[in-house]
Amino acid sequence: MQRVQPKIFFDNASTTALHPEVFKAYCDLLSTKFYNSDALYDASVEIQQMIEKSRLVIADTFCVLAHEIIFTSGASESNNMAIKGIAFSNQEKKHIITSCVEHSSVYKTCKQLEELFGYEVTYLPVDKNGVVNIQDLKKAIRNDTILVSIMYVNNEVGSIQPINEIKELVKKESQAYLHVDAVQALGKIDIDVKDIDCMSFSAHKIEGLKGSGILIKKQHVPLAPLICGGQQEFGLRGGTSNSLVHILFAKTLRLALENKNKHHEQIKMMRDYLLEGLKEIDGIYINSPSNGVTNIINFSYPKVPSEVMMNALNAHGICVSAQSTCASKQGQPSRVLKAMGYDDARANSCIRVSLSYHNKIEEIDEFLEILKESCERYGTL
Amino acid sequence: MQRVQPKIFFDNASTTALHPEVFKAYCDLLSTKFYNSDALYDASVEIQQMIEKSRLVIADTFCVLAHEIIFTSGASESNNMAIKGIAFSNQEKKHIITSCVEHSSVYKTCKQLEELFGYEVTYLPVDKNGVVNIQDLKKAIRNDTILVSIMYVNNEVGSIQPINEIKELVKKESQAYLHVDAVQALGKIDIDVKDIDCMSFSAHKIEGLKGSGILIKKQHVPLAPLICGGQQEFGLRGGTSNSLVHILFAKTLRLALENKNKHHEQIKMMRDYLLEGLKEIDGIYINSPSNGVTNIINFSYPKVPSEVMMNALNAHGICVSAQSTCASKQGQPSRVLKAMGYDDARANSCIRVSLSYHNKIEEIDEFLEILKESCERYGTL
Repeated sequence: MQRVQPKIFFDNASTTALHPEVFKAYCDLLSTKFYNSDALYDASVEIQQMIEKSRLVIADTFCVLAHEIIFTSGASESNNMAIKGIAFSNQEKKHIITSCVEHSSVYKTCKQLEELFGYEVTYLPVDKNGVVNIQDLKKAIRNDTILVSIMYVNNEVGSIQPINEIKELVKKESQAYLHVDAVQALGKIDIDVKDIDCMSFSAHKIEGLKGSGILIKKQHVPLAPLICGGQQEFGLRGGTSNSLVHILFAKTLRLALENKNKHHEQIKMMRDYLLEGLKEIDGIYINSPSNGVTNIINFSYPKVPSEVMMNALNAHGICVSAQSTCASKQGQPSRVLKAMGYDDARANSCIRVSLSYHNKIEEIDEFLEILKESCERYGTL
Repeated sequence: MQRVQPKIFFDNASTTALHPEVFKAYCDLLSTKFYNSDALYDASVEIQQMIEKSRLVIADTFCVLAHEIIFTSGASESNNMAIKGIAFSNQEKKHIITSCVEHSSVYKTCKQLEELFGYEVTYLPVDKNGVVNIQDLKKAIRNDTILVSIMYVNNEVGSIQPINEIKELVKKESQAYLHVDAVQALGKIDIDVKDIDCMSFSAHKIEGLKGSGILIKKQHVPLAPLICGGQQEFGLRGGTSNSLVHILFAKTLRLALENKNKHHEQIKMMRDYLLEGLKEIDGIYINSPSNGVTNIINFSYPKVPSEVMMNALNAHGICVSAQSTCASKQGQPSRVLKAMGYDDARANSCIRVSLSYHNKIEEIDEFLEILKESCERYGTL
């Protein structure tokens, strides 16, 4: 089968191309700095010091302590580690609160805790903008609530949760710990980790390496390790350190943040242009809230299922997704859009465009043209 | 501080230098093949197909089915995944059998299951060669034994467990599943996965990438996911695939196995030469059994603690370790040597030399000379 070369990459919320500086630094280190960072000879101590420098830079960026940064293999691990780690560290409290629009690594973890370990989980509803209601959260809090886990930015529609209000409420009204999956917020909006107990991040969403994540875990938070083992990561995450990947997280983070505002403006301009164009196509509905992050634009053309539309776009070298890439093959309507109150037709036909500063206005023009053509061709079948 | 350049690398059981072919292939792919392998457009499908090809090659190598290969972030994750996954999938059975010389990722996982989840764990003793006794295993098996987890090759002294007898016994006398941590066996001895339910491997011990492991999990084995999340790895391991790392596992494995016998002869020759030399240093005791793997030679010079000796060797650019690198900083006598019946002085003074085919006989000469000098200098303090 002849494959279509990717021409327009509009799936940056799924993953991003590796930043050339990260790529270069990584390849430079890979061939020589192979030593196990936990060994005691000098070649290893050097690598250990490079890891600790990276940890410190990351900690300073988030205004937390160095030993509050835990390197992981990615945000799904970070999310599992935080949720199960807190849940298992005090099993007398068996109630967890989350939302019904979380990423599968939070959602399925909560489901596992219910099914295998007897936890009770409250899944907060969201409004038509995909946002949880603070009063609902207040009502859900119980004496035995051990954890509240709410994402910062939704990965499918880009809605921003009221994290500041949530953390105020959780601190004031409960003994629960607060975990925030901030994967889609990093590099997009300002993040304040103050009064948040645990926060998860991924590198590959911000032009970093795959297999690279961190969990911010404040020092007062008890956490049963997810991956038990050696002394690595303060005994909280066993396994030979993926040293170079950890070392490069700091650079990845710096690169993502230093031009954040400039990139934001550029992406906002493209978003507005795209939204204008989408308005002109009859029968298209915008699913993303107007006050969400700028880089994610989710819309539906209910006459054409997501898969058909993605195939049509793919034939022109346009890369978009429908729902979360982690659930791309399940053939179910989007759980997020359903939770926002949309019907099956709309939840089955969503398309997510996620932009980066690498995209160009001409790509939007080309996308709109092919989208319009595809709506006309497939919408009348 | 002036750092000593590594000159002689005798710590290959801790980690290995990246194979130049793996390095080249990885860097070639890194800059362009960044797509999320779970997306549905062609650029992603291509990567997905490369992963599946790697999975198939690995499966064929071990004579298992492709969907019995689960990619993980390393062997510590694989070990946690197998042990907790099996334990949590049937919580009515609460007994586990392991040995007292397992790697920390098995040992600490069993400890966690005891402390947090009410499991009972039998830690089988070992003889003076570091080997478990089949009769002890037979006696330990109970009706509620859900899992037996025994390593193939010990990481500190190189003893080889009687895995064939163990699997026969476990299949015949129990309903338990059998998990084998085969990290130190891969590329060193022949591995037969038949009748073994789960087996863990790591790439960076065989000149592959760090952050790369697999778990062989036979299809009949129930397994609660350790990292819940997306559809990746048959729903058993969530998180965006570390695609290129998974793709390169097959190449890493092929390279490690295609010259295994040649490398074995070369390493055996060096081992014999080293053992001859060690015999000539008064007061040195060999801890490795004579029928262990050839690449690991563990010895003690009880007059000089491990840390002092490692420092002395490090000053000459010689990289060795004492006990497991994952426990290098705990300041305790080796748990493995203690289990083998050695006293604190011997368990506190062990040195592990682990060879690869890159080492040379001249390096052994130089090592022996500096070792002898260090024994004389520090042994009389």
